[in-house]
Amino acid sequence: MSRKLSKADRQKVLVKRIEENPFLTDRELADIFRVSIQTIRLDRLELNIPEVRKRTKNLAKQAYSKVKSINDSEIIGELIGIELNKSGVSILETNADMGLEKSKIVRGHHIFAQANSLAVAILDTDVALTGVAKTKFKKPVYIGDRLIAEANLHNIKRNRFQVRVKTKVDQKEVFSGRFVVFSRDKLSEGGR
Amino acid sequence: MSRKLSKADRQKVLVKRIEENPFLTDRELADIFRVSIQTIRLDRLELNIPEVRKRTKNLAKQAYSKVKSINDSEIIGELIGIELNKSGVSILETNADMGLEKSKIVRGHHIFAQANSLAVAILDTDVALTGVAKTKFKKPVYIGDRLIAEANLHNIKRNRFQVRVKTKVDQKEVFSGRFVVFSRDKLSEGGR
Repeated sequence: MSRKLSKADRQKVLVKRIEENPFLTDRELADIFRVSIQTIRLDRLELNIPEVRKRTKNLAKQAYSKVKSINDSEIIGELIGIELNKSGVSILETNADMGLEKSKIVRGHHIFAQANSLAVAILDTDVALTGVAKTKFKKPVYIGDRLIAEANLHNIKRNRFQVRVKTKVDQKEVFSGRFVVFSRDKLSEGGR
Repeated sequence: MSRKLSKADRQKVLVKRIEENPFLTDRELADIFRVSIQTIRLDRLELNIPEVRKRTKNLAKQAYSKVKSINDSEIIGELIGIELNKSGVSILETNADMGLEKSKIVRGHHIFAQANSLAVAILDTDVALTGVAKTKFKKPVYIGDRLIAEANLHNIKRNRFQVRVKTKVDQKEVFSGRFVVFSRDKLSEGGR
């Protein structure tokens, strides 16, 4: 934003921005509008917009209630949107426990776990298991980065679901994966 | 083994079997030779062969001392053999924490993590990062299964390593993966 907006204009744009992306923090909004965090807080108060934590929680509550294929606690990251057999979004806040000591780079299996559990969560089936995963780790992710994963169902053939997941940090793609997931019926055909 | 061997014969074969596969437990050896666990223990005592835990530990000590690319604690599973830029083996004992509550099936990212960290561990480089992973989850793994992963370096082009990993439970392949890993120099070329 190249110039400061008037308060009324700022509040209009603020509402729009938060609608588009409810996960923007007060700090990020302050940066966008080149005002103090305190100003953003007052804006939200006047506009009756809850803080980011609460906004996320509300979305999460709706999202988790829809999931059938996996227990809530088994989803890695926080699920914040879902449309069964279509798409879903989750957020994973990375921390030091997830990273390599030397390089401070987040380990691949955490990124994989977020994407894989999201790919399973969006499916409209009771039990689902991953068969194949083709994954690309496109950029290093550093401890503290916030991973936003988006899964889309690509196609279904009988009990075979193809799901694509893209994971971003600060709008930049850091990971992509294609997952082939089977629902339980298919698995039991093959024995075991 | 179709008939019971004499003690002398059994002890000869026992030495050979343990050389071939140092991870055989006393229980497994007892089953192989159709004798009691106590008999196997006495055999080992007479032959001066340490118990499986100690045998594994000794191998692990040697293996870990060779690794350059990753800290010991960052290897998922226990590393029990390694030849840098060639191959490596690790064992992961699965437990309830790694499994799905409903189905008792071990979650894919644990199997992925073992394979990926092994693929990195075998490389003769200081810092290595996974770029691409193509993975197949061939059979469900259940809580309590012992995962034995074997990694082999397939080829090297400049700082780009291709590693193949196969993971087995009871000699049956449950997972295979191809990992493309870059050493640090390559990464810094691409910025970030």
